[in-house]
Amino acid sequence: MNLEAAINEWSDLLAEHVITNAEELRAAATATFNESRCIPAIIRPGSRTEVQACLRVANRHGVPLYPVSSGRNWGYGSRLPALNGCALLDLRRLNRILDLNEELGYVTLEPGVTQVQLFEYLRARGSKLWMDATGSSPDCSVVGNTMERGFGHTPYSDHFGNACALEVVLPNGEIIDTGFGRFPDACAAPLYRPGVGPSVDGLFSQSNLGIATRMTVWLMPAPERVQAFFFRCDHDTDLPGLIDALRPLRMRGLLRSAVHIGNDYKVLSGIQQFPWEETGGQTPLTRDILQGARRKLGFGAWNGSGALYGTAREVAEARRVLRRSLRGRVARLTFMDDRRIRLLQAVHGPLQAFVRRDLAQALGLVKSVFGLLQGIPTSQPLRSCYWRKRGPIPDDMDPDRDRCGLLWLAPVLPLRGSDAVHACELAARTLLQFGFEPILSLTLLTERALGCVISISYDRDKAGEDERARSCHDVLLKGLMARGYYPYRLGAQSMWLMDQPNSYNRFIAQIRDAIDPNRILAPGRYEGERRLRQFEANLTAGLDERPGSPC
Amino acid sequence: MNLEAAINEWSDLLAEHVITNAEELRAAATATFNESRCIPAIIRPGSRTEVQACLRVANRHGVPLYPVSSGRNWGYGSRLPALNGCALLDLRRLNRILDLNEELGYVTLEPGVTQVQLFEYLRARGSKLWMDATGSSPDCSVVGNTMERGFGHTPYSDHFGNACALEVVLPNGEIIDTGFGRFPDACAAPLYRPGVGPSVDGLFSQSNLGIATRMTVWLMPAPERVQAFFFRCDHDTDLPGLIDALRPLRMRGLLRSAVHIGNDYKVLSGIQQFPWEETGGQTPLTRDILQGARRKLGFGAWNGSGALYGTAREVAEARRVLRRSLRGRVARLTFMDDRRIRLLQAVHGPLQAFVRRDLAQALGLVKSVFGLLQGIPTSQPLRSCYWRKRGPIPDDMDPDRDRCGLLWLAPVLPLRGSDAVHACELAARTLLQFGFEPILSLTLLTERALGCVISISYDRDKAGEDERARSCHDVLLKGLMARGYYPYRLGAQSMWLMDQPNSYNRFIAQIRDAIDPNRILAPGRYEGERRLRQFEANLTAGLDERPGSPC
Repeated sequence: MNLEAAINEWSDLLAEHVITNAEELRAAATATFNESRCIPAIIRPGSRTEVQACLRVANRHGVPLYPVSSGRNWGYGSRLPALNGCALLDLRRLNRILDLNEELGYVTLEPGVTQVQLFEYLRARGSKLWMDATGSSPDCSVVGNTMERGFGHTPYSDHFGNACALEVVLPNGEIIDTGFGRFPDACAAPLYRPGVGPSVDGLFSQSNLGIATRMTVWLMPAPERVQAFFFRCDHDTDLPGLIDALRPLRMRGLLRSAVHIGNDYKVLSGIQQFPWEETGGQTPLTRDILQGARRKLGFGAWNGSGALYGTAREVAEARRVLRRSLRGRVARLTFMDDRRIRLLQAVHGPLQAFVRRDLAQALGLVKSVFGLLQGIPTSQPLRSCYWRKRGPIPDDMDPDRDRCGLLWLAPVLPLRGSDAVHACELAARTLLQFGFEPILSLTLLTERALGCVISISYDRDKAGEDERARSCHDVLLKGLMARGYYPYRLGAQSMWLMDQPNSYNRFIAQIRDAIDPNRILAPGRYEGERRLRQFEANLTAGLDERPGSPC
Repeated sequence: MNLEAAINEWSDLLAEHVITNAEELRAAATATFNESRCIPAIIRPGSRTEVQACLRVANRHGVPLYPVSSGRNWGYGSRLPALNGCALLDLRRLNRILDLNEELGYVTLEPGVTQVQLFEYLRARGSKLWMDATGSSPDCSVVGNTMERGFGHTPYSDHFGNACALEVVLPNGEIIDTGFGRFPDACAAPLYRPGVGPSVDGLFSQSNLGIATRMTVWLMPAPERVQAFFFRCDHDTDLPGLIDALRPLRMRGLLRSAVHIGNDYKVLSGIQQFPWEETGGQTPLTRDILQGARRKLGFGAWNGSGALYGTAREVAEARRVLRRSLRGRVARLTFMDDRRIRLLQAVHGPLQAFVRRDLAQALGLVKSVFGLLQGIPTSQPLRSCYWRKRGPIPDDMDPDRDRCGLLWLAPVLPLRGSDAVHACELAARTLLQFGFEPILSLTLLTERALGCVISISYDRDKAGEDERARSCHDVLLKGLMARGYYPYRLGAQSMWLMDQPNSYNRFIAQIRDAIDPNRILAPGRYEGERRLRQFEANLTAGLDERPGSPC
């Protein structure tokens, strides 16, 4: 590879948008766990045409590019390329919202558009359409999260399932439009995903076969009525009955959206940081202290949230059935709508000075969940990244910079009580063994699948924790796989899962070899790194000898 | 290619399941329009392993294979390969239903399983799950229709969207399992479609990149209540307002399934054959006669059907909103459930001898639609293939054998009144110009897309009709494309649409070259034939000199 030549050509194209100073490169190479990369440059094209030109330069000089949209893939490796020696292709400048169709319910946008940008855009236009937001940062990229197959909280929670008409730049710099988009003036391009002939959208999700530079995202018409519900179970043993009671409601469409259920640790970490004083600095949190917090703040062993959407009568009927189905299975079921939230707010506002800080935070959590159930981005859940940090949470949260420790592991389970119990028990046991709190949540992703999100949250500033967290992650992932539970998404900590030789991986490799013979696009991403070790060694040879090299 | 050697090796593998007698080959090479193929052999493997072995033989001897499941792709070319010289790989013997999961709602099956077979299987087990059926033949393959991205009538009408965990034999004979299926004992394989990493399912739909030999199909839990609705509009000008009134209901989830709307010609052709006596043999049908039939049998210019599913109260609420939304937009809106159908039946049964045949047929049509709305396969709609035939409809309908003329053309439109009008007007004008009745239906395929199915129905036994129908089809398809309306599916009559050089087609071609270097699997299918002319000429060289050759 000829890095100098590539940087020179990129600089000719992008001027100051080529970053090579060591400090910025080092910041970019930092994640929320002990993984780093040698990133020789960051380039920030401002248009699709510039993305194409950057790829051509990369091909000419053999410098691979790793595309990121906002780079906020926290818990999965932030913006780290899979291999050392890849330059970052940062798409934040492609941040246009190109089209909004109120009648047919969609927006077309570029990868630099953030959740909050889309939200404000819709609000400014008085749109009657809702986006779906993840609980991740408001500054995370809509397209980036979609390509990773992330999920949110409304009936449009399946982000990739509600995306259409991708514009993709291939590794050779060519552009394709998926679905009907490849035909001139095809009216249904943003409306009907597969188009005609082989449908390739899925090939570009969780992959390294192309860069999405534009996408249509379907938006949900605001329903006549939305009513959130919150419930809690007081005993761990309530979990399987709860899941089995919710499944028929989800399968029958009475619950149209992803219900989220968090354990006690999850709720506590959303409300406050680790109670260092109370525990005298001991970790992990003892059951006693946790029980005390449950009593004080009113949450249970498992705590669920979701919402009902529709006409007033539809919502009333769904409420009736939900109430009946959960009777005897939950300790408390509360419904909440705008009026009730405003009431709480009105009571709470004037009393702010007198209310305990943790209660205020608990109300903040409820409000943020209620917002998410309507697609309103929030930074509230991000606070939990600071769970084990000793200092206060800064206003401008940046878990990478602040050395928050966070590893996410998200297996998919059958939507069945027994599977939820198996996976959660294994996760809780393993995390506690390694000295971490088992912060767990379960999401009714689809009518048939349950997503379990396991957070390993720690303080990178504490010696030995980085290594312990990684061991914990690996032991748990292998344990889950041995029981048949595989993750829906991988990060820098788990990309090794793709290393195994099998016919599926060979098939993808054949495609990759055909369309990216120079291995210019995100080598190792969702393909496993092992077989690329020699390739990587060639990329990085001599890199550490450059002045100010971060390698 | 070495056909003799291939046939010998296939015969060693499959014994009597290799067919080379001219009569059967000629029957297989017949479609419902003037298209035929030189098919040198039909091979019928009985297992996945035999499919793999057949592909290896094909590769060794350069004889391409064209896979069909049931071969009932009527209106799109039946079972015709895209090119002359391909042997048919007939999968009908792979007809096992391998797994039924009542709790999580799915069935796993092979490509030879027909709609009626699955229906009977579920019924025999007292299953509380519904399949979704197309209005095509009860003997059509579930997997085949799914891989063509066909659609039905229940909330699970999007067949490919409700398929998971494909087992695919690649052109080289290797097998891959999609999604989590590639990992050992992955519990969520039949439940969560994308798995992890690039998702390839879509690549195998409407393509020639692999053969699906197994698939999981999600099944809908039978709802507490189902209520069908039927409505009619008396004027063509009612159409746009109707469509625009239905869109919000579909987008808001009040209508969960695909509503179908047929014009007057469509309904009449579902009830009876062309009234040859009444018209004195003149075609196309005059407005006068059509108006008479509308009055006599009680249908309108546009006639819709759909159903409401859910709890009794959900259905009641959907009925209320539907009624309100359609007020003033339809001449009549009727609701129908099991009781009402049984009542009609009870009244009609004893009076059978006295009821006019066309009224009996009309009731039959309503009953079959009511069944389809609950996923019950029916052969009723198939009768319309015989619309222009002079003789009576046989009990064992076979449109290929009986020289029914049928060409289907199914553009996808935005779900918007103005688009429905544009497409339907163009279709009606074009078909009438060519002397055919514009038999049209519109389907609310998704929340945003309207599928228009245009039937060109004629009698292949009438001289000149074959050519006229093809010209009509081509003129109409080009006219629709010029307005931005592209078909969701192609047949032997329209595969030329894929011939255009563009980056999408080049991308697919690169993949194809990589995984099927010998062009063994269905060459030309969804890729266009033009560039394969020389390849085809080599395949067929000398074929017509074989004894009893059908070429």
